[in-house]
Amino acid sequence: MFHNDGFHVLDRQECLRRMAKVQVGRVVYTRRALPAVLPVNFSLDTDSSVLLRTSARSDLVRAIDGVVVAFEADDFDPASRSGWSVVVTGRANLVTDPAEHERLSRTGPRSWVLPGDGVFLRIEAELVTGRELAEALGTV
Amino acid sequence: MFHNDGFHVLDRQECLRRMAKVQVGRVVYTRRALPAVLPVNFSLDTDSSVLLRTSARSDLVRAIDGVVVAFEADDFDPASRSGWSVVVTGRANLVTDPAEHERLSRTGPRSWVLPGDGVFLRIEAELVTGRELAEALGTV
Repeated sequence: MFHNDGFHVLDRQECLRRMAKVQVGRVVYTRRALPAVLPVNFSLDTDSSVLLRTSARSDLVRAIDGVVVAFEADDFDPASRSGWSVVVTGRANLVTDPAEHERLSRTGPRSWVLPGDGVFLRIEAELVTGRELAEALGTV
Repeated sequence: MFHNDGFHVLDRQECLRRMAKVQVGRVVYTRRALPAVLPVNFSLDTDSSVLLRTSARSDLVRAIDGVVVAFEADDFDPASRSGWSVVVTGRANLVTDPAEHERLSRTGPRSWVLPGDGVFLRIEAELVTGRELAEALGTV
């Protein structure tokens, strides 16, 4: 489905496939009644939920555990004026089960800044939307 | 000032200089009581405010005109695990003055998808925060 404003809407599978190609996304939430956004390392779990890895001490855990957030990932290329963006919206929950934590330590997202330790937050993929710039497809 | 979690805090000038290097950022706002985020072309005006260019018909104008939003820009490199991110928080306002619109049509942000027309939204740079991954500086 092509929008008349130059974007091609992506279906859920196309969205998830694109997200799997990048390592950094942005958590969008509310902090002190203001919109807040924080880039963070992530990966997709086998059920399509978004896994974040962060410091146990971080404000992020306190701010979003149990809360509905948006998580955005994209890849834009200025040279070709093309790209895509995906937004996953769902509730975030701290992973507290030790067996699950151990599994994610082996298979989950790597952090670029944590030396080793950390906690995992899972964002359920309740709503997944995405779009791709149709420039490359010649519709603009 | 170095955080113990691997990030170097950027001052306002450093934040704005980095933002000037990229063409796409993300508007963070609230829509139907849920966190929302939308990538959009932008540029910085001479007073450091963030200028967005979007279709006059877009949901974005309706959603954020007169509202405090966050605007995020970043650049991360997976190969070197380095990068930076900046967040500008402030009120967004539709530019309605014809002379101002004309000036911005010549000097403001280019849109990758609008054929020519469009409107401008200005986000006042009331709060500017940013950080850079200190990996490249050897602190992690």
